[in-house]
Amino acid sequence: MSGNVFGELFKVVTFGESHGPGLGCVIDGCPAGLELSVDDIRQELLKRRPGQGGAGTTSRKEADEPEILSGLFEGKTLGTPIAILVRNTNSNSADYDNLRNVCRPGHADFSWQAKYGIRDHRGGGRSSGRETLCRVAAGAVAKKIVASYGIEIKAWISSAAGIDDIDEALKAVEAIHAEGDSAGGIVSCIVKGVPAGLGEPVFGKLDARLAAAMLSVGAVKGIEFGSGFAAAAKRGSENNKIPDGILGGISTGQDIEFKVAFKPAPSIAKPQKALNMEKNEIVDLVIKGRHDSFIPARAVPVIEAMTALVLADLLLLQRSASLSLSTVH
Amino acid sequence: MSGNVFGELFKVVTFGESHGPGLGCVIDGCPAGLELSVDDIRQELLKRRPGQGGAGTTSRKEADEPEILSGLFEGKTLGTPIAILVRNTNSNSADYDNLRNVCRPGHADFSWQAKYGIRDHRGGGRSSGRETLCRVAAGAVAKKIVASYGIEIKAWISSAAGIDDIDEALKAVEAIHAEGDSAGGIVSCIVKGVPAGLGEPVFGKLDARLAAAMLSVGAVKGIEFGSGFAAAAKRGSENNKIPDGILGGISTGQDIEFKVAFKPAPSIAKPQKALNMEKNEIVDLVIKGRHDSFIPARAVPVIEAMTALVLADLLLLQRSASLSLSTVH
Amino acid sequence: MSGNVFGELFKVVTFGESHGPGLGCVIDGCPAGLELSVDDIRQELLKRRPGQGGAGTTSRKEADEPEILSGLFEGKTLGTPIAILVRNTNSNSADYDNLRNVCRPGHADFSWQAKYGIRDHRGGGRSSGRETLCRVAAGAVAKKIVASYGIEIKAWISSAAGIDDIDEALKAVEAIHAEGDSAGGIVSCIVKGVPAGLGEPVFGKLDARLAAAMLSVGAVKGIEFGSGFAAAAKRGSENNKIPDGILGGISTGQDIEFKVAFKPAPSIAKPQKALNMEKNEIVDLVIKGRHDSFIPARAVPVIEAMTALVLADLLLLQRSASLSLSTVH
Amino acid sequence: MSGNVFGELFKVVTFGESHGPGLGCVIDGCPAGLELSVDDIRQELLKRRPGQGGAGTTSRKEADEPEILSGLFEGKTLGTPIAILVRNTNSNSADYDNLRNVCRPGHADFSWQAKYGIRDHRGGGRSSGRETLCRVAAGAVAKKIVASYGIEIKAWISSAAGIDDIDEALKAVEAIHAEGDSAGGIVSCIVKGVPAGLGEPVFGKLDARLAAAMLSVGAVKGIEFGSGFAAAAKRGSENNKIPDGILGGISTGQDIEFKVAFKPAPSIAKPQKALNMEKNEIVDLVIKGRHDSFIPARAVPVIEAMTALVLADLLLLQRSASLSLSTVH
Repeated sequence: MSGNVFGELFKVVTFGESHGPGLGCVIDGCPAGLELSVDDIRQELLKRRPGQGGAGTTSRKEADEPEILSGLFEGKTLGTPIAILVRNTNSNSADYDNLRNVCRPGHADFSWQAKYGIRDHRGGGRSSGRETLCRVAAGAVAKKIVASYGIEIKAWISSAAGIDDIDEALKAVEAIHAEGDSAGGIVSCIVKGVPAGLGEPVFGKLDARLAAAMLSVGAVKGIEFGSGFAAAAKRGSENNKIPDGILGGISTGQDIEFKVAFKPAPSIAKPQKALNMEKNEIVDLVIKGRHDSFIPARAVPVIEAMTALVLADLLLLQRSASLSLSTVH
Repeated sequence: MSGNVFGELFKVVTFGESHGPGLGCVIDGCPAGLELSVDDIRQELLKRRPGQGGAGTTSRKEADEPEILSGLFEGKTLGTPIAILVRNTNSNSADYDNLRNVCRPGHADFSWQAKYGIRDHRGGGRSSGRETLCRVAAGAVAKKIVASYGIEIKAWISSAAGIDDIDEALKAVEAIHAEGDSAGGIVSCIVKGVPAGLGEPVFGKLDARLAAAMLSVGAVKGIEFGSGFAAAAKRGSENNKIPDGILGGISTGQDIEFKVAFKPAPSIAKPQKALNMEKNEIVDLVIKGRHDSFIPARAVPVIEAMTALVLADLLLLQRSASLSLSTVH
Repeated sequence: MSGNVFGELFKVVTFGESHGPGLGCVIDGCPAGLELSVDDIRQELLKRRPGQGGAGTTSRKEADEPEILSGLFEGKTLGTPIAILVRNTNSNSADYDNLRNVCRPGHADFSWQAKYGIRDHRGGGRSSGRETLCRVAAGAVAKKIVASYGIEIKAWISSAAGIDDIDEALKAVEAIHAEGDSAGGIVSCIVKGVPAGLGEPVFGKLDARLAAAMLSVGAVKGIEFGSGFAAAAKRGSENNKIPDGILGGISTGQDIEFKVAFKPAPSIAKPQKALNMEKNEIVDLVIKGRHDSFIPARAVPVIEAMTALVLADLLLLQRSASLSLSTVH
Repeated sequence: MSGNVFGELFKVVTFGESHGPGLGCVIDGCPAGLELSVDDIRQELLKRRPGQGGAGTTSRKEADEPEILSGLFEGKTLGTPIAILVRNTNSNSADYDNLRNVCRPGHADFSWQAKYGIRDHRGGGRSSGRETLCRVAAGAVAKKIVASYGIEIKAWISSAAGIDDIDEALKAVEAIHAEGDSAGGIVSCIVKGVPAGLGEPVFGKLDARLAAAMLSVGAVKGIEFGSGFAAAAKRGSENNKIPDGILGGISTGQDIEFKVAFKPAPSIAKPQKALNMEKNEIVDLVIKGRHDSFIPARAVPVIEAMTALVLADLLLLQRSASLSLSTVH
């Protein structure tokens, strides 16, 4: 959970800016002997392509063709680092010339500048939603491990623009997009088949890790597990009766359910006011370029990928929980 | 965020079971030259004593007298590990004899047993709320660092038993407690004076770390930042206008606000059904011993402590963000 | 391999200064179900007591009575952190009053002061040889894990004062000690029964980890594996015929042999010149107190302990090398 | 110091097999604002090209053209991960067909197979000396940081085939090579200008980290600091007078000197006996392909690179040693 490294045993480092040469990841700690092909990565990347969610996604269309640079031999993982690279082919830096010194409202422009004293302003640089591509690529490998344990991960958009009926909600999203505005939403996720015993008390609890994983995704503003915030209004005698997939931060074998709240995309077509950092004055801003106005549409595979990364790591960590291998899952 | 170690540079490892000899922590990476006394620890520990929150707290009253075993010399930190020990003096193991093989509903008994194949059933062992004592002790040191940067952390109970008017809510909690039942609640936290630039993209974002920190606290079921789940129903044109303390996972210099949802305490006086693991049958359960029925009452200093641990670590990490020390905060 | 934390899965943090309240360690990641008693720790600590090696050891005699504060239940490890504390009972701070501002030759006084801007000058503080007590305590637990895999670790003094015949060499050490001077020496170590496959290429190789472990012990100036520096003068056709316990950083199943060079103890009774940092002038120094003049005499159990810590960690790490548990050792 | 990740704040992950698509590294934690160009990397890579050391180097000649994929903007580092890729262009897999099931003497074939149950036999896969390319690429960036602090790192071959007069020694190496055999040697390194205070006691000491770094390089069998093994034969009164660049694991400001012993290259042209793992029988082996017979010739820039990686990391870590930034170096 340091800067760009995720996981302890199944460790992923990601790299790449939106408008640089490319993005990718290196996975260190993937067990040897896992069947893997570039097509496994490609299939997952296709799920986050624009237009998948139907509504409000960017018109930037890239092939996002992954290349596996290492760690694979005759169709199986070697136990050595797996490097995956996706080149940027359709970036248009000129779209961003007017943003070099401007802090777009709701974006990370100011905070990145404050942190590093320098930033790549083109398309948000590394704070771009395009960074999630690396997560999905790494998650594709994690998903294969997780699947080998019989675990299924399923995420979906459960609310959009404040509306829970999804057909109705996505129509609302399109209408909002047409107005030059953007909408928020909620992505739900259910995980079935998790063996009991996953999670590392007390700081590396399963829910703590999932929370960190989800909040590390751009535009996420909250997470709740099971009945979540509603549980805060319940009584113990009532709440104790509800099966819970995680107790004490460790999986129980029951289904794990959680919800992730996304704020509306900060990039909107409508004119806005913004800070010009160089001039230190408020200026009129019109954001050009191609943007998602409804982030959950493309975030579903990202949520699944991050879930898979957490679980793959915990499955491996669980192998050292007990001296006796007979109790290893 | 591994098992019992928290943080990267300001690193804390905690130890101890509810009914073992003692609990404590070792802080590795506290900078040298910080003024510190055992009284700094003692004052914070007093805040989590039973009865502080008024309603529904355990009658187990321990002195919780901390001892600093290392890392201090003539009133200042040495830069070496700071070990803090609090002995258990008022534990009553006999209260738990009937729980040796029983999985209490809503508790971590089953999941811990599944994980390790062994557990200390007395008072929940390490899954006891008493474990938070170590967090508060370590947090007391982190708070001093954070304060030296001018940062203020303030948490409070903002909702209880589903009621937001706190006086009214705490009365409801007492009534629920009198019925032998328990209540949930929400703890809110505001952090003022955070310099812009804290947070390590992309996986160690400030909100991701806070989320992991909070979800690692027992009974927490959710977290939201700023308008949180409500933001998911907003439009970008509206949401972009709200000042946000964290953008792109990095602090902006604005106030940081978040809310943490606690489920009702699983230990209730009312009779319940429970699984006896040895006999593999459902049995009648009456929980004896001394328990909190309203966890938020004692969780306020824990939330503050975890916040301080996250910030102390990020303040130190920020010192290496830029080559030029002139931009180091 | 950060400051005071050693290991990845079998993780040890140590704490304590020579003349503070106590020293100890916390082990996070010891598998559950290991039989362990305080006597296991005590027996190992006895091996590093003064007088064990016969020659040139300090007259500071402490009971070094360990206490296990957590992680144990009914004689078995719980999988939770194991905290071990040894109190300082026989420290005499007054011996060091004249050293408050003095940099003893060959000691870490100046470098620690430069690093932290503060130090505990009494007995070297944390740079004291007494710190190795924590390693031996943690190593006692690691040894039990290692032994459960059938691994044997054996270290011994193979050279002293430049003499390889040990009886003769220890007599020379005593004579040097009588002159108020100190002697160096070499500790050899052989490890038998290591399964093939331990070591994490490319940076966490078995020999790289052992080297870090050994060089982290005070006064160590070098390490060599197998024929070591002599191998640098050999031909491939010759060297390829020698069985090697480590190839490519991974154990082969053959015996592992290495040698560790200790410089002569820097604390000597003879008068020396030293820097007074406060006055910034060279002063006459006579070191009082009780010191080892021949470090290897007490380092043998430390070398064994560090070896056990490395192997315990790698044994657990090896459990995640391959997807198939059938190939897990 | 885990598998393929090196460093704590200046963190490097490397990837790639000798005969796969490419090799490279990702640096996470390089401070923002460092001037860097692809030519900085290229110049360092040129130093490890065959023929640099004069004697006994492989005839495999590759352009080793590096590409910087991320982390750079307008000639300066962004603070985001720096990914560097070098493609394999001149690999000849057919050379290795006869080695698929053979354990070459002195090589890591058997131990890797035992560890992972699978390996890429072509050119040693990831255990190839070609892997050091990634270290040199990452080291090129570290060197720029280190240089900005005024630190100079200089390594050289100080002994070959047991001969210390280098002209004479390299002639001996050529003669040994002509016989179809290989020679070992020693690489010395001196580091000037290191500020006092670097090193993280007690496990992350400067010498412990350098030792781990050096022993992680293939074919290294030993390391000694200062007078090293010779110090073991000295007296304290004598040894205390020698200036030492590292005391108590922390730099003193004096020059740091160490020596690294390399065994003779295990790949020799002479016919040898070897184990065929599939048939489980001893077979005649003639190693084809292009190999280094004298590893130190190309290891000099690798030793410098690893030294730079250790120092860059410790320079950043030192920024958090003290609360007061005024004492930060």
